[in-house]
Amino acid sequence: MNALTPTVTVGPLPASRKVYRPGELHPGVRVPMREIAVHPTAGEPPVTVYDSSGPYTDPAAKTEIVKGLPRLRERWIVERGDVESYEGRAVKPEDNGFVSAGRLTPQFANLPRPLRAKGDRAVTQLAYARAGIVTAEMEFIAIRENIGRDKARARAARDGESFGAAIPEYVTPEFVRDEVARGRAIIPANINHPETEPMIIGRNFLVKINANIGNSAVTSSMAEEVEKMVWAIRWGADTVMDLSTGRNIHNIREWIIRNAPVPIGTVPLYQALEKVGGVPEELTWEIFRDTLIEQAEQGVDYFTIHAGVRLAYIPLTVDRVTGIVSRGGSIMAKWCLAHHKESFLYEHFEEICDIAKAYDVSFSLGDGLRPGSIADANDAAQSAELETLGELTKIAWAKDCQVMIEGPGHVPMHKIKENMDKQLTVCGEAPFYTLGPLTTDIAPGYDHITSGIGAAMIGWFGTAMLCYVTPKEHLGLPDRDDVKTGVITYKIAAHAADLAKGHPVAQMRDDALSRARFEFRWDDQFNLSLDPETARSMHDETLPKEAHKVAHFCSMCGPKFCSMRISHDIRAEAQEEGMARMAEKFRSGGDLYIPVEEVEAAKAEATEPVEGR
Amino acid sequence: MNALTPTVTVGPLPASRKVYRPGELHPGVRVPMREIAVHPTAGEPPVTVYDSSGPYTDPAAKTEIVKGLPRLRERWIVERGDVESYEGRAVKPEDNGFVSAGRLTPQFANLPRPLRAKGDRAVTQLAYARAGIVTAEMEFIAIRENIGRDKARARAARDGESFGAAIPEYVTPEFVRDEVARGRAIIPANINHPETEPMIIGRNFLVKINANIGNSAVTSSMAEEVEKMVWAIRWGADTVMDLSTGRNIHNIREWIIRNAPVPIGTVPLYQALEKVGGVPEELTWEIFRDTLIEQAEQGVDYFTIHAGVRLAYIPLTVDRVTGIVSRGGSIMAKWCLAHHKESFLYEHFEEICDIAKAYDVSFSLGDGLRPGSIADANDAAQSAELETLGELTKIAWAKDCQVMIEGPGHVPMHKIKENMDKQLTVCGEAPFYTLGPLTTDIAPGYDHITSGIGAAMIGWFGTAMLCYVTPKEHLGLPDRDDVKTGVITYKIAAHAADLAKGHPVAQMRDDALSRARFEFRWDDQFNLSLDPETARSMHDETLPKEAHKVAHFCSMCGPKFCSMRISHDIRAEAQEEGMARMAEKFRSGGDLYIPVEEVEAAKAEATEPVEGR
Repeated sequence: MNALTPTVTVGPLPASRKVYRPGELHPGVRVPMREIAVHPTAGEPPVTVYDSSGPYTDPAAKTEIVKGLPRLRERWIVERGDVESYEGRAVKPEDNGFVSAGRLTPQFANLPRPLRAKGDRAVTQLAYARAGIVTAEMEFIAIRENIGRDKARARAARDGESFGAAIPEYVTPEFVRDEVARGRAIIPANINHPETEPMIIGRNFLVKINANIGNSAVTSSMAEEVEKMVWAIRWGADTVMDLSTGRNIHNIREWIIRNAPVPIGTVPLYQALEKVGGVPEELTWEIFRDTLIEQAEQGVDYFTIHAGVRLAYIPLTVDRVTGIVSRGGSIMAKWCLAHHKESFLYEHFEEICDIAKAYDVSFSLGDGLRPGSIADANDAAQSAELETLGELTKIAWAKDCQVMIEGPGHVPMHKIKENMDKQLTVCGEAPFYTLGPLTTDIAPGYDHITSGIGAAMIGWFGTAMLCYVTPKEHLGLPDRDDVKTGVITYKIAAHAADLAKGHPVAQMRDDALSRARFEFRWDDQFNLSLDPETARSMHDETLPKEAHKVAHFCSMCGPKFCSMRISHDIRAEAQEEGMARMAEKFRSGGDLYIPVEEVEAAKAEATEPVEGR
Repeated sequence: MNALTPTVTVGPLPASRKVYRPGELHPGVRVPMREIAVHPTAGEPPVTVYDSSGPYTDPAAKTEIVKGLPRLRERWIVERGDVESYEGRAVKPEDNGFVSAGRLTPQFANLPRPLRAKGDRAVTQLAYARAGIVTAEMEFIAIRENIGRDKARARAARDGESFGAAIPEYVTPEFVRDEVARGRAIIPANINHPETEPMIIGRNFLVKINANIGNSAVTSSMAEEVEKMVWAIRWGADTVMDLSTGRNIHNIREWIIRNAPVPIGTVPLYQALEKVGGVPEELTWEIFRDTLIEQAEQGVDYFTIHAGVRLAYIPLTVDRVTGIVSRGGSIMAKWCLAHHKESFLYEHFEEICDIAKAYDVSFSLGDGLRPGSIADANDAAQSAELETLGELTKIAWAKDCQVMIEGPGHVPMHKIKENMDKQLTVCGEAPFYTLGPLTTDIAPGYDHITSGIGAAMIGWFGTAMLCYVTPKEHLGLPDRDDVKTGVITYKIAAHAADLAKGHPVAQMRDDALSRARFEFRWDDQFNLSLDPETARSMHDETLPKEAHKVAHFCSMCGPKFCSMRISHDIRAEAQEEGMARMAEKFRSGGDLYIPVEEVEAAKAEATEPVEGR
């Protein structure tokens, strides 16, 4: 791979076509979706799915990594009339970790001039929402969240338990505005990242997932990270965090942002630490502040800020089995202890808000004291920090800044709901953004699964975005395959959560795939799945011929034992039966079948909402 | 691989040693466990874990597949004085599906003479339990379930939500007897399978997992299936179901049973169907009955019997999205409909019990009408069948037969608990044995994960055994790698369930691994994990050198950003602090730290049981 021009994976997924739905309030809005065609014998329309993959999956879009993506939101931002372009901060040697010239990642060539708010205005989606303005971003999101269905079709029977969420039948732009205004949802959308296709993170919308990428001092390069980002969104990542910690952080990030159609999050503390040679004690508010501006100008959409790690909480971690496992948390704890001072992030939080509101950088308030093991779950340190995050949420809201809250970590199943409920209460329903949680510590190498279990559950209980965990967690830096496995696992968790919450469109894809399965439309079954390539290749391992794609069996059971094949026979017989002999049986007093009323009663009972049982 | 002498994987897992704990009531009892050594710097004893792998992981045991395993339980069985040996049924051509001589799997050479109950006695563990007899099997299980801890150590603080289960602090042989007598647990232990190391399936014991193997008409051979069985138990399968459907069923099963230290389950209907050329309508009670005796004589430990698929319920499946997806269920439905008769399994259930009690074959009452898609979950057909399974449970109990109940299938998260609760009520707390459930239909190729989520949850809610689902589910027959992935995923689900239920020994392994993680004992972290090979190889992908096994970082974060390394510094500083300056600060009225009382109060609150919050 050439370090100068990264190669990324492009082209549509199998049987898929990119479609765009127009806005009504904002004519410039064009919302991408993916239509998956099914076989003509199905007699069904294509299945429309949410699409976070950006222009890379649109054959009509030309991919030029060196130029970056089209600046989709630029006009919307400028036309609001509240921003100004300015010279911006000059790149300094420390921004790239003082890397030697020979090892410097080349600067992105097509550098835009940064924008910022005029005066001390808040140019955040929260400020607009509070002012009653439905932005183009909000309309875009409303259309996107409905996944192509119209109002008329929205009235499906609802089935689910949402634990007090308020998921609407149909998402209107006004609903989006209202949720953002209440602080129950955020739209991460830095004015310097106009390449993003707007998306929302909130409990009353589809559950989102984040994929982490980023190099470390030990391994990885710019080209790899850009390709990982494109790869992650191809499989469904809704946002990407660049957690780079080595050298070249500034330049790598620029390449990522300019080519990212999804919001990019960072932990600015990591870069700040590189600037002081990796010695936490040497961090200062000034260096951190400068880093925030640097990253805000580049277009980072959300910052993880570990301002909840207060000096007073550090003693609470000393008896833990695994101490402090958050990088940011441990850095801040070390700083606090070394200086015997309260955290500069906590003390300067209002100034941090002033920067964030000038660019619309959302906050992801970091859980620096999250538990790193089952033994430490839901302990005093975690709880104390969460209270502080609640306090900071209110400060951010007072400054018109958008906020979500990071959550754990390692939590056994029986403590997950308690965690979610406490977050909702303490943080005034600000969106929760959790890492897993892992439900056991004993399976390194499989932590996408130990955490996928917890993620599905906490997503159901109300978490708005799930941060993926890859199989490499605790062991090493994820590669391309690990990224894909992590993303697919978390798409499963998020979708399982949407289903359980009773999201009105969630089950459509399950049903379409199940019908394809029952009708032996093998290609449709592959194409409708989260990972068509893997599904197809697993099938083809034993039955590779094209003829087998219409076969009424697979290698699992073989033809004679195929329950679905037999089911078709039964259905045909029963239907014929129903018309003639079955009815006759009833008339002649046969009791082989349950009387119709009983069948209907049993059906009615079985479809009652769970809450009522 | 030679078809005559299968090659199986033997030898201990890394850093592991097989230990045997003796019985007290029954001196012949020797219960195998696995001790995982940790590095001397840990200053900890080895970690003892439950071990289902049999003699294959004991270097002192000689593996001779052609001879079969030692007949561990033979003396116990014979000494009870209630069985007789007899000639047994001659093998017929149809038993192997009329396979031609050239394709016949060779007969197992070392064929034992079968045993059966004298007269019409019930030689079941349930009958003994009801008679107040603590069998050697029961004592074996009591020792096994405690995983090496003694009574004195049992009094750890309990933490969990068990939803009404009655998990004891310490498992006594009498407790095992009582649970079996109540029907709340079963010990699958055919008198003709004396090679088994006794194990128990019940809500008040460790959650167990089953792995399915078996050839199909399309693929696979005897040698592969024997090796899959040994491979599955190596990674933790507690029982194995042989779901073979092709030819050679009889002979393959014999090889499997003679070499299986775990209970073997089957679906006798599959073999019966082969005997009638794969035409369900041709099945008869006589053929089925003969198949039961054939398999009972071989030593099958539990039979799946789909006696709940009644004629009257078939119309309830006609409007389903995926009809009937259980092989056995579809076969019986087809039979019922073709003959317009009630199921012969239902009508002859008492006679089936009479066979089962003469050999101590346990029942796994099949859920032939389980849902095959999210759309069909918890519907009228499933519900009706479950009621019948409850009725059959009572009949089996009246005959002194051991029973567990099979459960779904495909169920969204919000309908899982309802399923579990209904099963407990309807089936009088007989153990539940579920397939997953899968929490979404959209991820073929990843159904170990879609179902692992549901399995962990339903295990927590009370399911006693989880039937694994491999990545190949819906796509093809699992190979060796799929079997391992399925088993590890289900070990995760079962362990997560044990943790959440508050099983008193579950967390010991998590804590040991987490301590190893925090102390950078990389080898210990790998060795204590469910899959040491995978954990090690993932770590070594980026940091292969032996020196890195003691490094205080990994490739994920690199040295500077290692939170755990920083945590150690913090801990050292804080501990020193605590002794000197911190105390001084307090005395001088500093308020940087929370007063000690508040810290203690916060800690106390965080460790309160979940139920109380």
